[in-house]
Amino acid sequence: MSSSDIFIGETIGTAVLILLGGGVCAAVTLKRSKALNAGWLAITFGWGFAVLTGAYIAKPSGAHLNPAVTIGLAIDGGTKWSDVPLYIGSQMLGAMIGATLVWITYYGQFQAHLTDPELVATLNPKEGMVDQTATPQAGPVLGIFSTGPEIRNVVQNLATEIIGTAVLVLAILTQGLTEGLAVSGTGVLMTAFVVVGIGLSLGGPTGYAINPARDLGPRIVHALLPLPNKGGSDWSYAWIPVVGPLAGAALAAGIHKLAF
Amino acid sequence: MSSSDIFIGETIGTAVLILLGGGVCAAVTLKRSKALNAGWLAITFGWGFAVLTGAYIAKPSGAHLNPAVTIGLAIDGGTKWSDVPLYIGSQMLGAMIGATLVWITYYGQFQAHLTDPELVATLNPKEGMVDQTATPQAGPVLGIFSTGPEIRNVVQNLATEIIGTAVLVLAILTQGLTEGLAVSGTGVLMTAFVVVGIGLSLGGPTGYAINPARDLGPRIVHALLPLPNKGGSDWSYAWIPVVGPLAGAALAAGIHKLAF
Amino acid sequence: MSSSDIFIGETIGTAVLILLGGGVCAAVTLKRSKALNAGWLAITFGWGFAVLTGAYIAKPSGAHLNPAVTIGLAIDGGTKWSDVPLYIGSQMLGAMIGATLVWITYYGQFQAHLTDPELVATLNPKEGMVDQTATPQAGPVLGIFSTGPEIRNVVQNLATEIIGTAVLVLAILTQGLTEGLAVSGTGVLMTAFVVVGIGLSLGGPTGYAINPARDLGPRIVHALLPLPNKGGSDWSYAWIPVVGPLAGAALAAGIHKLAF
Amino acid sequence: MSSSDIFIGETIGTAVLILLGGGVCAAVTLKRSKALNAGWLAITFGWGFAVLTGAYIAKPSGAHLNPAVTIGLAIDGGTKWSDVPLYIGSQMLGAMIGATLVWITYYGQFQAHLTDPELVATLNPKEGMVDQTATPQAGPVLGIFSTGPEIRNVVQNLATEIIGTAVLVLAILTQGLTEGLAVSGTGVLMTAFVVVGIGLSLGGPTGYAINPARDLGPRIVHALLPLPNKGGSDWSYAWIPVVGPLAGAALAAGIHKLAF
Repeated sequence: MSSSDIFIGETIGTAVLILLGGGVCAAVTLKRSKALNAGWLAITFGWGFAVLTGAYIAKPSGAHLNPAVTIGLAIDGGTKWSDVPLYIGSQMLGAMIGATLVWITYYGQFQAHLTDPELVATLNPKEGMVDQTATPQAGPVLGIFSTGPEIRNVVQNLATEIIGTAVLVLAILTQGLTEGLAVSGTGVLMTAFVVVGIGLSLGGPTGYAINPARDLGPRIVHALLPLPNKGGSDWSYAWIPVVGPLAGAALAAGIHKLAF
Repeated sequence: MSSSDIFIGETIGTAVLILLGGGVCAAVTLKRSKALNAGWLAITFGWGFAVLTGAYIAKPSGAHLNPAVTIGLAIDGGTKWSDVPLYIGSQMLGAMIGATLVWITYYGQFQAHLTDPELVATLNPKEGMVDQTATPQAGPVLGIFSTGPEIRNVVQNLATEIIGTAVLVLAILTQGLTEGLAVSGTGVLMTAFVVVGIGLSLGGPTGYAINPARDLGPRIVHALLPLPNKGGSDWSYAWIPVVGPLAGAALAAGIHKLAF
Repeated sequence: MSSSDIFIGETIGTAVLILLGGGVCAAVTLKRSKALNAGWLAITFGWGFAVLTGAYIAKPSGAHLNPAVTIGLAIDGGTKWSDVPLYIGSQMLGAMIGATLVWITYYGQFQAHLTDPELVATLNPKEGMVDQTATPQAGPVLGIFSTGPEIRNVVQNLATEIIGTAVLVLAILTQGLTEGLAVSGTGVLMTAFVVVGIGLSLGGPTGYAINPARDLGPRIVHALLPLPNKGGSDWSYAWIPVVGPLAGAALAAGIHKLAF
Repeated sequence: MSSSDIFIGETIGTAVLILLGGGVCAAVTLKRSKALNAGWLAITFGWGFAVLTGAYIAKPSGAHLNPAVTIGLAIDGGTKWSDVPLYIGSQMLGAMIGATLVWITYYGQFQAHLTDPELVATLNPKEGMVDQTATPQAGPVLGIFSTGPEIRNVVQNLATEIIGTAVLVLAILTQGLTEGLAVSGTGVLMTAFVVVGIGLSLGGPTGYAINPARDLGPRIVHALLPLPNKGGSDWSYAWIPVVGPLAGAALAAGIHKLAF
């Protein structure tokens, strides 16, 4: 696999992954979107088909689209360690492009949502109306870019991300998809439904990053974009969806080496 | 591929695409339909399986079913430019047949919905009850035929349609489905889920035409059908779901040529 | 294909089709079911996976499971006319077995639902509370067994069933599945999603029988079962979901012969 | 197939099955989960993709993941009787590991839910507020671990579990998947959708165990875990989701031997 194949496949594929994945979060969250309040099933199927579409397009690079998958395959022996930096760099670049495209696609909805008088009142509460907690507050549209926990607990949040990612990487490794997801159409389809399943089943506590690039890239974009009233980017949480998935991938690769 | 194959496959396939796609919009919109208010997931899966069924049937012509796909494949070299007019003409004819079949299928529901006293009151507001805006008003059942934006903004609306169509056409081109979607059963299935994904993720702002024939054909039928209280056909918006998807297809073909 | 293969495949396969298809209607309709009010998406996916499971099991007979499919394949030349009576007889028998199994599976729910004091009050209205219309009233659980229209109009109801069935049979014929659905796993999967699509898009007016055995067999069982307060079996409508699907199949076979 | 392959495939595969299957029940049930109240479709698709993911991973052992499947295949001749104890033991072990992983993944949600003052009030009712029935009460989170009937009736509950499991095992046997589900990617996908279908259609009365290990293993874990206010483990019902599925598997194997 040439460097150019890796760069192109991973950058474009991850951009599409995040465009569709962030897109479904925008679709169900923002005022004046036709999909407003379409619910958890829409989000989980949306992310699953985001994986499907991104992986389908990223055929030239083997469709990792996820540093955790790249690390898992590298430990397992299917990906050369010397290719790892290019994979991860391309994934990060792609994720940032994808998050920017979500903003362009939903530009008017972001504006309408973030300048809504009711929302602005919540953000700038009058005295006595809202308790200001010490915890850094996640911005009202940060959930379109990055994940955040329902209950803030480092150990549980890490555990949840480790477990979710381990399931994903183990499924990829046991199928011998050492070149990535896109070996066959059926493989792409199955992996997409595995991701829907992880979302439905393990997404409740943290919103299932299970992919460092998926979380960190868009979080950087959230910090950079000129969105009104966007709130903070919750940097204190940002390391968990990076470290958790990488640890989960290592765990899965370890189980695979030992057991299979 | 013979002209007769193209004509038959594209006309019948696009008719089925629009019959099922328009059908699901009628199903969730019209009073006295069993699917009333079934929601956004129903609409997006309905359109996805409309693509699946239409493509499944349009095997003889390679199942483009979409002028944007035809243009994308022509730029990429998989479809002869001399065949393009026949493809697009057949798609337009099929889309108009399909929209008419939706009307026949839901005939009683259209009548019940459009003569509902509550709706009629909204359409013919008494003084002081409803603000008449300067914007041309979309008819209350136009959404069953054509798309319309939640927020009217030419630049954003065009951008959304360009981005959505580029994802679709890029997915088709990277799979080497240069003869269209129907090369294999798995290809049809994957493309159908790509369309569900585009709907879930990118459909919020404009309702994702991503296909000029899908939008323009049924809009013409809306203008022609003898529906009571049907309202305007929103012609001022009609060029966006034509130009946007074609531009998106050209963009995707360009990316594919340069990058892959 | 031996007579024994046809009998076994069609009887058991159609029994499973109706067990699961009727089952999902019971699941979302009856009091004290965990799936109560799960909605239209649940019903349409439930019927789609009922087709998938029934066709998967009915491999030995080619998995018609539907007199309209059998007639369509016979006109097209894939099924011998001499086998048609055995196919249809087995399908009717299977449908009646399946409907009986739904009753056994949901026995307690049927009893709880049909003896619910609130429901009974509606069925035996006190003077002045409920208008008795001249139309024969469908029983409150008939929808678990058979289809019924939202708006009673012979022409539209027939047209809807003709159109829905024509889409189904055309999809089967264009794939060259002349031995039925079960030629390949992918074929079964695609056909199941075609059925979900027809349900989502064309099911609103009549509840999409698109299969004479699916409607008539369970209607007979409804008439025979000792259900309290079950209401009438709506025999005046019963011919439409028989004649409509058969006409739709003939139409599809004609289009296929002429066009493809 | 070596003993080590069976042990590893079934233990890890069943752990993943129960992690995802129990996980989706936790996700829609527990307070402070992002998927709270996502509904019956989420549960049934969640369990289906749990089967898909578990079977995908359990390739080395043929992916039974279910004592009923193992018994069905043994009667049918595809699995050696001497391997049956190892299969079932591994499945039970895996199910217990999976249920424990659900608890770890949703640790904070379990704590928040079970110590919620409103819930605790229900569990320790003040005099006159709640009728204590003689029936052993299922604990408030037992549904995340094990199944329970909506209407307690031994005959119907057994019948429902027998019928549901017979459909599952018959689908597996007729496809000749005598080595289990994982013979092919398409086979795994189809079986996953069969399970979604059984859930949608036959899950209403008892919550469709259709797998003794899926029910008994997590029930034991429920009894052992140090959950506050967890309530009883409903042992009086525990034999039905063991005996019913095994009887259903024997029935399916018998039908398969006689008929196919």
